[in-house]
This record gives sequence, C-alpha cells and structure tokens, in this order.
Amino acid sequence: MRSFFKVKRAEDIFESLRDIKPLGTESVHITGALDRILARDVISGEDLPGFQRCTVDGYALAAKDSFGASENLPTPFTIVGEVRMGEIPEFQLNRGECARIPTGGMLPQGADAVVMIEYSQTVDDKVVEISRPVSPLENVIQPDDDVKRGQVVLHKGTPVRPQDLGVLAGLGVGQVDVFTKPRAAIISTGEEIVDIGGETKAGQVRDINSYTLGGLCIKSGVEPIYLGITGDRFEDLKILIEKGICQADVVLLSGGSSVGEKDFTLDAFLSFKEVQIVAHGVSISPGKPTIIARRGNKTLWGLPGHPVSAMIVFDVLIRYFFARLCGLSEPPGYDRHAMEAELDRNVESASGREDYIRVKLTRIEDRWLATPIPGKSGLISTMVEADGIIRIDMNTEGLYRGEKVKVRLF
Amino acid sequence: MRSFFKVKRAEDIFESLRDIKPLGTESVHITGALDRILARDVISGEDLPGFQRCTVDGYALAAKDSFGASENLPTPFTIVGEVRMGEIPEFQLNRGECARIPTGGMLPQGADAVVMIEYSQTVDDKVVEISRPVSPLENVIQPDDDVKRGQVVLHKGTPVRPQDLGVLAGLGVGQVDVFTKPRAAIISTGEEIVDIGGETKAGQVRDINSYTLGGLCIKSGVEPIYLGITGDRFEDLKILIEKGICQADVVLLSGGSSVGEKDFTLDAFLSFKEVQIVAHGVSISPGKPTIIARRGNKTLWGLPGHPVSAMIVFDVLIRYFFARLCGLSEPPGYDRHAMEAELDRNVESASGREDYIRVKLTRIEDRWLATPIPGKSGLISTMVEADGIIRIDMNTEGLYRGEKVKVRLF
Repeated sequence: MRSFFKVKRAEDIFESLRDIKPLGTESVHITGALDRILARDVISGEDLPGFQRCTVDGYALAAKDSFGASENLPTPFTIVGEVRMGEIPEFQLNRGECARIPTGGMLPQGADAVVMIEYSQTVDDKVVEISRPVSPLENVIQPDDDVKRGQVVLHKGTPVRPQDLGVLAGLGVGQVDVFTKPRAAIISTGEEIVDIGGETKAGQVRDINSYTLGGLCIKSGVEPIYLGITGDRFEDLKILIEKGICQADVVLLSGGSSVGEKDFTLDAFLSFKEVQIVAHGVSISPGKPTIIARRGNKTLWGLPGHPVSAMIVFDVLIRYFFARLCGLSEPPGYDRHAMEAELDRNVESASGREDYIRVKLTRIEDRWLATPIPGKSGLISTMVEADGIIRIDMNTEGLYRGEKVKVRLF
Repeated sequence: MRSFFKVKRAEDIFESLRDIKPLGTESVHITGALDRILARDVISGEDLPGFQRCTVDGYALAAKDSFGASENLPTPFTIVGEVRMGEIPEFQLNRGECARIPTGGMLPQGADAVVMIEYSQTVDDKVVEISRPVSPLENVIQPDDDVKRGQVVLHKGTPVRPQDLGVLAGLGVGQVDVFTKPRAAIISTGEEIVDIGGETKAGQVRDINSYTLGGLCIKSGVEPIYLGITGDRFEDLKILIEKGICQADVVLLSGGSSVGEKDFTLDAFLSFKEVQIVAHGVSISPGKPTIIARRGNKTLWGLPGHPVSAMIVFDVLIRYFFARLCGLSEPPGYDRHAMEAELDRNVESASGREDYIRVKLTRIEDRWLATPIPGKSGLISTMVEADGIIRIDMNTEGLYRGEKVKVRLF
C-alpha cells in the first residue's frame, strides 16, 4: 500500500494557485460578450451623451427668464421654434423666447433648462405661458453627465453585465477584448462506471460525475470537453489524461484519487514529465481525497469518485481556481450571494477540517430555516434535495440549533 | 395631446399576466439541459444504485461476526475472495468469512457491512484481523438509498442544476423534456438613435436599450432577436412590430411610450387587430411610462426610452413575466438571492408608487453598506456603478440611514 495522504488546507491550496493566470484574450462582439471577463479596462473615447440633452417633453428656455413664474402669474414666452429629435437646432433663443423640445432633444443655444409640458399652457401658435420656474440645468443632462471622455467605464477582470453592454453600446464600442474561455477535459474512472446510454447490471453504476462537473464548468464560464470513461487500466487512464492535456487547459478526473490499491490517479499524473503535485488530500469534508497537480500551464485535478464530494471540491476549490483562470480580478467569496438562515438543528463537526453541510431552506414568515440533509456523499439525491451548503470552519466543533449561518445557494 | 396615463400597480399587472403559459416543450440531451426548465416531473424508472454498494475500501462481512472486536482483541476473518469493481461477486460469505472490497464495489451474499481498511491488519493471504466492530449497513449504500423506483426526482417547472444533470445521468435519462425557450424581438425607437457602428453627430445618441435588454433576456433564459432601430415614422414602427410578432413570442420596444406628441407606440400597438391593452403606465419609478399589450399568445411591451427605466421595468415586471413564459413554477421573488445591507443615508420616496433605488455596496467589517446612487434615469453609467437595487414600498415615504434593506444584486 502506498503512503497516506499529505493533507493541505484549502487556504494553502489557494496560495499555491495564486499565480494562475488567464490564458489569453480575444475580441468578441458585444452581443456575445455577456458574462465574459474583460481583458482590459474600457476607457471612454468620448463624452456621453455629447450634447446638452433634455429629459422631458416641454419647452427649452433660459432658466432665469422663468424666475417668478407661478400658477397665479404665469410668464409668457414666445415660441421661436421646435427642436427635432436627432438634429442640431438651427435657431437660438433670445430673452423671453422658448422652443418646443421632446424628451431626448438637444437644447438650442441660449437655453439652459426645460420646463415640463405639464407646467405650460399654450396661448396660441406663438405664445406659451409657463406656471413654474425652473433652475439652470433642470431637466437637462450635461454633455458629460453620463460618461466623461477618458474615464475608465469598465474594469479589467470584471464580468460583463447587461448594463455594461449598454454603456459599451452607448460609447460605440462594438467589439470588446475578453479573456479566452478555458476548456476543461472531463474524465470519469472506474471499472464499474457505464455511460448514460448503456445498460447496467448489478454492480455497475452510470457516470454521474461527468455531467455534474460539466454543468459546474458551464456555470463557471468554462467549456467542458467530455472525454468519457476509463476503467482501472493504468495505460488507458494515461492515454485519456494525455488527450485531456492536449485538448484542454484543465483536466478534471474523478474517481481513483484515494489510497486504495486500484487508485492509479496519482501515479498516472506523476508518469508525465515535469508534473508537480500541489496537494494530495485536502482538509475539507467531504472531498478529502483530492489530488492537484500542475504541468506547465495545465492543471490536473484528481477528484473523489463520490458525486457529492466531487461537487463540494468543485464548489470550494475549483470555482476559485477557475475564477483566476478566467481572469476574474476578485475571486468569488463565500459571503457574497449567500443567504442568511437559521440552523434548525445541531450539527457536529470534526475540528481540523472544514466541513461542508448540505441544507434545505424553508421560509418561516420573515426568516429562512436551514435544515441539514443527512446522507452519504455517494448519494447525488442529497444534492438535488439541497438548496445550498454551509461551511463549518476548521476550528469549530459544530453549530447549534438557532445559530445564524450563511447558505451559499446552488 | 392624448389622454394621460392609466396607471396600474405592479401587483395588478402580475395578476393580469397570471394566465401566461409556457409555449411548448422540446426534448434536449442533458449536456444541453443546464438552466432549462423541466416540462414534466422526472420519475425514476429504477432504484439507484440498484445494489448494495460499499462506500469505503475494506472488508465486506456480516456485521454480527465483528461484534466484540477491539484493538486489544482483534477478530480474525478468513478472506474468501475479492470483489471486483463492476462485477457481481460469484462467491458468498459464511460465518467468520470476509472479502476484500473496493469503494463502490457490490457486497457479496452473506455480507451486510464493510470494515474500513484502516481498522484491519492482514495476517497472511488468507486471514485478516479486524480491530473495530461495525453495525449492519455500516459503510454500505442500500439499493434504493439514493433514489427509489417510482420516486419523483425532479419537478416540472424547476430549472436544471448541475446536480440535477447528475441524477438524470445516474438514472440513465439522457434526454429530458424542457419548455421551449421563448424568443423576444427587440426594437429601439427614436429619430435620434444611431446603431452601435454608426457615427453620431450632436443631437444623436447610440442605441443602448437593444443591448441591455438583449443581455437581460439571455439572463432570463430568453433568446433575443435584434430587430434594430426605427425612427418616429408610424408606418416604419408598425412594420417592425409586425416583424417582431411574426418572428418572436414577445416584442420589447423601447422609447416612444410616453404621452408626448411623437409617442406612437400605443397607437402602433392598437393598430393591430384584437390587441388588448393590459396597462398604460405603471406605478413604479423609474419606469412609469410602460405599455403592456397582448394579442393572442404574443405580448407586446412598450418600455421607456431611458436606459435605467427600461432596465428597472425589466427587472420588476418582465423578469416575472418571462418566468411564467419559460414555465418556472415559482416566479422569482425579490427576497431570494437578495443581500441584506444597511442604508448609509436617508432616501426620500413619493408614496403611491414603488420606488427603485440603485445602490452601491461596500463592505465594512462584517456588514454591507448600501449607498444610493443619485442620477437621472437617462444615465446608463449609474447602473454600471450600481451593485443592485432596493425597493421602497408604495406606502413608505422613505427610508432612514441605518435601516436594513434587501439589495437585489444585478
């Protein structure tokens, strides 16, 4: 039998993966840029909107001419023109003059504010009475109110959101540089594993991990490449890992990472030249028998075969690793996008490892209750039943009923 | 000038849209099923794993034979065979006998528990000493522990998560029935609007709404169809809306929904036969000038031209509508996936409408501060700066500094 695990803590693994960098950049049209990670700051080449723009339907005028106007004593203005959408007004306003202007129109010279149509009363074609004064710039967007030329509008390392597409479009930036999407080769090992389409006989089970890991990759902005299943033959495993190294940036292999006699993953990893083992064993539960290796800019993950363990390792470690590989400047924390809930029973935990507990959420009036879901880590149904997971720190021996916990939602 | 708005409350609009149904169903392979909405309950056709399965590396035996074993007085067992992964053991155990078994292996007849290898000491090829007793079923998954035949494993109307792919794969369900993805035709109106690639002169602005709305559609599981820009000519607008009705299930038109003279959206909607107006004006701010119309199973949305207003209307109303159209059984609430934060200044609000306030989040030690972002709803940059929005209810006149608020993250 080979040596037992050399267990590392999650934070030490994060430290070992700190130098992971994105793979490269590519230019994509903004209609395909949603959720991609920006590879450069986007700096505005112009002011937005670029002209004095009206935000209501009404009358453009010089604000000072409206001072003193009231419902009882409205101020009459001479209408000298009408602003047309998308055009530069070809007239200018003198004292006591105004122009009709629609929402989004450009203010004519001599105007610095707009009175809403609701506070006007037309006397005839040429004269309108204004019943409320306006301040300078009221109902007006200044030429650089939205974006200033030279301003950093979007930051390198952030994901593109719908509103970011909007500001890019507004500035005329149709193509944007984003980091290359990593590819992850997914391999399942085990003599007992049968692919989804195959018949199973007693003793065999179907491949679950390829599909859960594939889904998690997509959720993390990584393209999965399904390489299929290999049995416990060392040479077959090696060939499939080599295929993964050639076709992808990351290899995610599940099964065979424990210290049992048939657990060839570590040997298979080590059989490649210049492979460096980052960790063999991680102090998280479930998920302890995890192997992490690096070879040049490729990273190889040997994950536990139990579906729940593989998913937890993904959630705790690989998600962080993928964030770096995708170029996210701020790796995902456990707090953000987590929901606070109240534990509804005691949970034990061994100290010396981080425990991850599957929980189901129930709403009771204004608060959420988190109920731990018992069950072995071989049971995928426990993850289906769960709404999220909670973490119990290494130095905590358990949590009590009624304690507040942060639930990371799936 | 035409009539002013007939304003409806958001909850009345939800009520009017209650009968919206998904469009149809299709069958997809599970590698393409992530985030799709299940069109049927998935009922298991078999037990999972389907046999008594071992969860550790060790020795299979009858638990009762191990009772009394201890480190000081280990119990010897005769090794009569080795379970091979994926195969049915061809031997059975009698009293005092055991078999080597790897994680995931099938228990031989006569065994009901497994002792971990850590609690064993081999004496020779044929004998192993066990230093700890096991209970019946210890380290064993029963044939239907994960899923029982006939059990509803996934529910109609729920989105497919990575773990759901896992359970489908485990049960051999490679194709799954999901609701058809809706298509939304996106149109921007306004004489001043120029497409992203075009040059702008003073008075013109580029199309922002097509891209923000397109991004929001994708985030909601809806396929955007970009129909482009039309000016304020009634006939052009009508042609584009007709194209949208033909090509898509929903038309999202922005601009031209106010009551100004050039606001043709309502007239354009009404010019189609059998159109029913659901709302003209919504009591939310920003976003009041919104028109909702239905024609058969097509729904037409006239959204404000201001980018922020259009996005808020999407977030508050269209997201709910799309959830129904996509077949989600539980439309997205405002609470779930919201983060609690503390307001760091007072916010005023008019009663009689729901106010939506853009906020930026800052972390101060263990809590989050939400800072309202001022700025007109024409400024897309305020949405870029924001991390989320908070809602101020219709009957609340404002919120005080220090109050707890729920921030819906973008």
